[in-house]
Amino acid sequence: MKLQGQEEYEASSAHENVSAGELESDHGPSHSPGSSSETDSRELGVCTDPPLFIQLNELLGWPEALEWRETGRWMLFEEKLEVDAGRWSAPHVPTLALPSLQHLRSLLVKGLVLLDCPARNLLELVEQVIRVESLSPELRGQLQALLLQRPQHHIQTRTWPCWGSTPPKKVPHNENVPLKEQHQNPLRQKLPPEAEVATVLAGELGFLPQPLGAFVRLRDPVVLGTLTEVPLPSRFFCLLLGPAMPGRGYHEMGRAAAVLLSDPQFQWSVRRASNLHDLLAALDAFLEEVTVLPPGRWDPTARILPPKCLSSQHKRSLSRKREVEGFSTRRMAGAEDRRGPGPQVPCPELQRTGRLFGGLVQDVNRKASWYTTDFLDALHPQCFSAVLYIYLATVTNAITFGGLLGDATDGAQGVLESFLGTAVAGAAFCLLAGQPLTILSSTGPVLVFERLLFSFSRDHNLDYLPFRLWVGIWVATFCLVLVATEASVLVRYFTRFTEEGFCALISFIFIYDALGKMVNLTHAYPIQRPGFPGYGCFCQYPDPQGNESQWATTKQKNRDDILSMDLGLVNASLLPPSECTQQGGQPRGPGCHTVPDIAFFSLLLFLTSFFFATAFKHVKTSSFFPSVVRKVLSDFSSVLAILLGCGLDAFLGLATPKLTVPTEFKPTLPGRGWLVSPFGANPWWLSVAAALPALLLTILIFMDQQITAVILNRAEYKLQKGAGFHLDLFCVAVLILLTSALGLPWYVSATVISLAHMDSLRRESRVCAPGEAPSFLGIREQRLTGLVVFILTGFSIFLAPVLKFIPMPVLYGIFLYMGVAALSSIQFVKRVQLLLMPAKHQPDLMLLRHVPLNRVHLFTAIQLVCLGLLWIIKSTPAAIIFPLMELLWLDELMPEEERSISEKGLEPEQSFGGDESQDSELMYQPKVPEINISVN
Amino acid sequence: MKLQGQEEYEASSAHENVSAGELESDHGPSHSPGSSSETDSRELGVCTDPPLFIQLNELLGWPEALEWRETGRWMLFEEKLEVDAGRWSAPHVPTLALPSLQHLRSLLVKGLVLLDCPARNLLELVEQVIRVESLSPELRGQLQALLLQRPQHHIQTRTWPCWGSTPPKKVPHNENVPLKEQHQNPLRQKLPPEAEVATVLAGELGFLPQPLGAFVRLRDPVVLGTLTEVPLPSRFFCLLLGPAMPGRGYHEMGRAAAVLLSDPQFQWSVRRASNLHDLLAALDAFLEEVTVLPPGRWDPTARILPPKCLSSQHKRSLSRKREVEGFSTRRMAGAEDRRGPGPQVPCPELQRTGRLFGGLVQDVNRKASWYTTDFLDALHPQCFSAVLYIYLATVTNAITFGGLLGDATDGAQGVLESFLGTAVAGAAFCLLAGQPLTILSSTGPVLVFERLLFSFSRDHNLDYLPFRLWVGIWVATFCLVLVATEASVLVRYFTRFTEEGFCALISFIFIYDALGKMVNLTHAYPIQRPGFPGYGCFCQYPDPQGNESQWATTKQKNRDDILSMDLGLVNASLLPPSECTQQGGQPRGPGCHTVPDIAFFSLLLFLTSFFFATAFKHVKTSSFFPSVVRKVLSDFSSVLAILLGCGLDAFLGLATPKLTVPTEFKPTLPGRGWLVSPFGANPWWLSVAAALPALLLTILIFMDQQITAVILNRAEYKLQKGAGFHLDLFCVAVLILLTSALGLPWYVSATVISLAHMDSLRRESRVCAPGEAPSFLGIREQRLTGLVVFILTGFSIFLAPVLKFIPMPVLYGIFLYMGVAALSSIQFVKRVQLLLMPAKHQPDLMLLRHVPLNRVHLFTAIQLVCLGLLWIIKSTPAAIIFPLMELLWLDELMPEEERSISEKGLEPEQSFGGDESQDSELMYQPKVPEINISVN
Repeated sequence: MKLQGQEEYEASSAHENVSAGELESDHGPSHSPGSSSETDSRELGVCTDPPLFIQLNELLGWPEALEWRETGRWMLFEEKLEVDAGRWSAPHVPTLALPSLQHLRSLLVKGLVLLDCPARNLLELVEQVIRVESLSPELRGQLQALLLQRPQHHIQTRTWPCWGSTPPKKVPHNENVPLKEQHQNPLRQKLPPEAEVATVLAGELGFLPQPLGAFVRLRDPVVLGTLTEVPLPSRFFCLLLGPAMPGRGYHEMGRAAAVLLSDPQFQWSVRRASNLHDLLAALDAFLEEVTVLPPGRWDPTARILPPKCLSSQHKRSLSRKREVEGFSTRRMAGAEDRRGPGPQVPCPELQRTGRLFGGLVQDVNRKASWYTTDFLDALHPQCFSAVLYIYLATVTNAITFGGLLGDATDGAQGVLESFLGTAVAGAAFCLLAGQPLTILSSTGPVLVFERLLFSFSRDHNLDYLPFRLWVGIWVATFCLVLVATEASVLVRYFTRFTEEGFCALISFIFIYDALGKMVNLTHAYPIQRPGFPGYGCFCQYPDPQGNESQWATTKQKNRDDILSMDLGLVNASLLPPSECTQQGGQPRGPGCHTVPDIAFFSLLLFLTSFFFATAFKHVKTSSFFPSVVRKVLSDFSSVLAILLGCGLDAFLGLATPKLTVPTEFKPTLPGRGWLVSPFGANPWWLSVAAALPALLLTILIFMDQQITAVILNRAEYKLQKGAGFHLDLFCVAVLILLTSALGLPWYVSATVISLAHMDSLRRESRVCAPGEAPSFLGIREQRLTGLVVFILTGFSIFLAPVLKFIPMPVLYGIFLYMGVAALSSIQFVKRVQLLLMPAKHQPDLMLLRHVPLNRVHLFTAIQLVCLGLLWIIKSTPAAIIFPLMELLWLDELMPEEERSISEKGLEPEQSFGGDESQDSELMYQPKVPEINISVN
Repeated sequence: MKLQGQEEYEASSAHENVSAGELESDHGPSHSPGSSSETDSRELGVCTDPPLFIQLNELLGWPEALEWRETGRWMLFEEKLEVDAGRWSAPHVPTLALPSLQHLRSLLVKGLVLLDCPARNLLELVEQVIRVESLSPELRGQLQALLLQRPQHHIQTRTWPCWGSTPPKKVPHNENVPLKEQHQNPLRQKLPPEAEVATVLAGELGFLPQPLGAFVRLRDPVVLGTLTEVPLPSRFFCLLLGPAMPGRGYHEMGRAAAVLLSDPQFQWSVRRASNLHDLLAALDAFLEEVTVLPPGRWDPTARILPPKCLSSQHKRSLSRKREVEGFSTRRMAGAEDRRGPGPQVPCPELQRTGRLFGGLVQDVNRKASWYTTDFLDALHPQCFSAVLYIYLATVTNAITFGGLLGDATDGAQGVLESFLGTAVAGAAFCLLAGQPLTILSSTGPVLVFERLLFSFSRDHNLDYLPFRLWVGIWVATFCLVLVATEASVLVRYFTRFTEEGFCALISFIFIYDALGKMVNLTHAYPIQRPGFPGYGCFCQYPDPQGNESQWATTKQKNRDDILSMDLGLVNASLLPPSECTQQGGQPRGPGCHTVPDIAFFSLLLFLTSFFFATAFKHVKTSSFFPSVVRKVLSDFSSVLAILLGCGLDAFLGLATPKLTVPTEFKPTLPGRGWLVSPFGANPWWLSVAAALPALLLTILIFMDQQITAVILNRAEYKLQKGAGFHLDLFCVAVLILLTSALGLPWYVSATVISLAHMDSLRRESRVCAPGEAPSFLGIREQRLTGLVVFILTGFSIFLAPVLKFIPMPVLYGIFLYMGVAALSSIQFVKRVQLLLMPAKHQPDLMLLRHVPLNRVHLFTAIQLVCLGLLWIIKSTPAAIIFPLMELLWLDELMPEEERSISEKGLEPEQSFGGDESQDSELMYQPKVPEINISVN
């Protein structure tokens, strides 16, 4: 199945001969020995030609006021000069009328074709062009003067264009020196320095007896003075002049010539053409490949936006070759379509070596070679914003799970342990692991296990931390066994079904937790309904003698209403509780402990932070504000939403629950040191018995860790430095040993935060051709961002004075946002949406072109049922074994037929990646999602 | 300037020969003697031909398992059978490869063309087709058997398609009787009954020695049994068979033939063709007009969504004619473009007759002829939802303005007067006025005037209601003079600038009022900050002897804190205030009168109702849910949002401020009857002096009334029954006299609610061709909805028990929604958005193609400044003269140049409406707005 994001990834390979090869102007280093785009472009052999910028200079004003004006320009797409509005149109897919191409062809047949013309400047070029023509000397002179006249270019140097300020009409430009404004043309920075220019001159010239066509290829490209908008060397020159013609004849013919020249295959042919015949053959080849839109069903003046994804030139040439070879291509293609992708070859990281610790050794060797660049690659400003974003997410996570742990273990662990453990484990993992983009965190399943372990210890009067140490020792041992036996290679059997189920579950847990915490908050700060016993609070003072016992109290009346206790107080006031305490009094009454307005205000803060985080994230794809502003707003969406929430909270000054950060550096449990004693009060055999719960926890950790690792190492993220499944598991095992000994929480890879981490490190190509969509190049793979995040997390223990201003509802809102963002990017959710859509409104997804709708719905329904069952299990004490259950079910419940859908039908982009596909994704997809949680 | 909505309106004229003429299957009556679409289609003369449904039956499975299968179908757009998925694709613009059209042409040249073939059934047809061919008798037999074989149609009778359940392969269908499933085909309901069918049969047939092409036009259309998907008579039959060909040759050729046949101009030509030469000429004419997309810049397999607006066939034929006539069309077109629309001819309603009351008499005559249909046209279910929606808006308005009036006039008028006046004035207006779609309401400017008049009366000890009666008498007199002198014809000088300014201001007032009321609410229900004197409330009882004076109180301590009064009470409890009162006690303390949580909960209700009203409205353009559900959600968006808000409020049961509805039917001011005495305590000369404020109020009412009337009667709403400016003003004058005498508020036309009223009465064409966008046909112009709304408003005085459950914040939220919705539809707002957009992200608006950006920005800025000044004036007591000020300014402040932009540059749809325009609006506009507040 093909999602929007994936299209974008594929797009990069579509531009190989224009952008990905030479023009990849992204600043990030590209150490990869064989990136796919390079390979592609070498294969094609077209990329050695410099890119071409084409402009159309039109002759306007016949007969009174002749002037040349640039009215169109092309790289990949067309930009048209809006003469009245004085601006360039947005880039769009050029559309031509078929007759204009035919007229152009016949004019070239009759006209002059000069290939490898040796002209060294415009004057020489013009002389060549007019000399050969059978024109009278007088006409020749007039024509020469006209061709040497300086054209008007519309150069947008500022927001307010300088158009028309100094009209440079009728000034000859044979001096061959480009003007200042040409050098200052901002377009120049968009063009690669080696680009060449083709100029098409077209227009009505009444004094010519018959149409005059000329096509010139210069032997050596040369800057033709003020002829071209940018002072780059010209390679092609095309002249299309003549007497009056119906319609916008010459304009359309000029456009046709320019569009032809902007076609990479035509460029390739015409650079190598040796005579008119070659030129015409190239034109005919172009005509063979055009797409035709019928009249009436399409307004020919409508502008088509540039598609997100261009069809690959490579594909074009191949499909043509095959067509020439002829015969039954169609049936072959059909068969290919149905066969689907062949059996998957596991990636090298997941091939079994057969030696003890063989995989680990391989991982270490592979990773060692990248180790230096793992730090150098982080030197990019983008990493700064990534650190800030992930730091906040990590701290939020640490606080939340710290609070939950403290609650689950009766204070045996708490927020301080959570901070410290996160910092130590995370930093160590980022320094040493196989996939340093992974962010370690406490996770839901592990938390549930810990809660059960603690209950067990308490019920059987066991010393919790020593028992837990032994569990940790056993888990580490089992994990080492798994590493030694290379058990991680099993992950290649995870299917889309498994991964999507896992992702959806984790996302739902995030959403559920966020909402659950808000509900808990309304219990802590109840809403005061009319008649609710929240009224009534007064301040009781000792009498002036300070003798409390002398307070006169009357007896309670004999009524069952507990509120109606009689007041027999002589010394009391109605001061608010805080002031009362200050003045030595004591607040009395049921209303003293209720804080009004907090519940609803918290809800407002929660919604505010959620909506603004979402809105800021989406600013990136909106059309408002300059791109820098949009990028900042989008990259710092969570930070800005948190700041906004804090600001709102501070403005109203209500006593909302705030983040509590430990102020002293010592274990939460009073009276214990940092090291856990190996036995404590427990009997010796408990250290052996601990192997049983450890076995469960090992399965849990293995699944939790490896599913996340598989998701992070997907091919669609174009990671260059490879995965390290064995090394990752080894690190997790060692860290579990360490944290058990120190009495800190246990950590595994966290899917949602790790994906957010990768998302904030996306590399995209800088766009060169106007209208071209930036393509996804990969992720900044390095160890520094994670390391800094965890060092900062460690220091956050001392940030209490700042962090204590963050209201908890704001953090819950960010949690909700993270869950929703992760959920919205998986295909499963898109399929659930399909359930609600009438067939005629369904998007033109690849999936739906190839799989019957009821099959898709059935697959979705099975996934929904599984997810529902998982959720039920997760909500019961059986939660600790749920990842195991999941794996079993996937292979039991899913019938062969369904599995074949998930492997073939739902993933037709595999066949689409091939070279012969008869359909493609609908290209008008308005927005580009961020990183996708979907398997390739 | 061309807005999205307008495009849609224009779209209707684009389909004249297919849909607007015969296919207009909307149930609404069309009494209009000369609707524009009818005129257009008559002009073209094409519409007499029945529409054509084309299907492609493809021969698959050569050589083993030959079978015919319908793989594509066309009306306006293409639907492709997704063979794997077993469903029809969404309708899309067909794209062809140029070679397929050329192959088709050469096959037709060599092949058989039978025009006016007399075959009466499929067998005869097949015999005709194969007899003429130079085939061996054996081949002929095989071919005949093959052609008579029943094809497979994919007929989606239910959501779960019956595809493949009974494969009807290899069954001859020469029995000529259509099957049950063909009759049950839901497609048949979409096709007009007079439609004809064209069938294209194409495929690879290896035993043929050479390609076989045949094109047949049947003399008398006949149902060809099971050959076609729908049992409609066939007119055309096209056969394209042959030996293996590279690529998907026959499939593409068949598609080319089908697309050709789906072209209205080709249809026209081929229906009248008398020989092969005519047929080829039609094909060549088609080729002349196709749009060509270059390869590489466009993936030919991408599906282009149907454009919102089709280019008119009329335009096509004209532009072609002109091109044939040749010469300098371009310069002509250019000149036309620049000239802009000529001087506007005022519509008949606004032509001065020159007689006293001439305009009024004309209005009455015009309207009298429609009077019966004004009631009959309301018999449509849509009117029911319109009544509900507008009733709620009117009641909300009546309550709000009633409350404000009561406040402004110290209770001289109140909510009861507001309800009664609204009901009486509104119902009378709907029965008698020229434009019964108008909704009368209290408006902001009139309210401000009333407030000032009351202050003046109070300061000078005047009797307010009698004074007001005289003002009303004078206003009515002045208005009658305006009617008599036909002053309303002046409204034709209102420009876009005036109207947009007015609309924006009214919308801002709605938004400002909604927000202002929410702020007021937080003052009434303050948020309890820590330290806020809201704590402390207890219940004081009389002692058991019931002797209040015996309560022991200690003296207040000598402190300035008013809260710290000592309590010397012996009989008190902490019961909530309500219970305390019930039990005979008395609540004491500062905390007793504060209601916590209300402010934030009100804010939540406000936001909820605003967001849900907006969201429900937008459901219409989403792709979820069946269209019936979407329509209901969208039409009842406000009602649903109000119900949701009430539900939420009832669920939590907080004491939010609720709607207060009078329970007794009597004037709010105690001691006055329903008739206002003409003098009261005022001196006699005051009745003359009242003429001065009356003059001001007359100007105010004239402007307020007529700007709204101009907006409602815009050409883009396609009103059939004409306007009645004079009659409207006459009605308003009479009603002012009446309401003054009864002491009820004054009423004029309210822009926002009236537009909402029209919006809820839109008529749209039922779509016939798949992929065709419904076109706007007009408004259900009738008097009944308004009448019922106001009758219900009158009865609402007795609905207090139900209406009292509606919380005020919910109503404020709906107000905000109405303001925002009205604001978002005016071009001014779109131009303000342009200010924030970088040039390259700006949408491809007509405006921006023709007017320089800095001019557009300057125009917007001037409008913004004017609006700011208007707002300032509106906020001061000078508000009463603001409409006058506005008119003066518009003509003073706006330089000639700006005015020329507003008249020409910003309204290029006038020139676009013509027949020669070189550009058109970008067609990929994702959503269609509702009624636009923008002048044509």
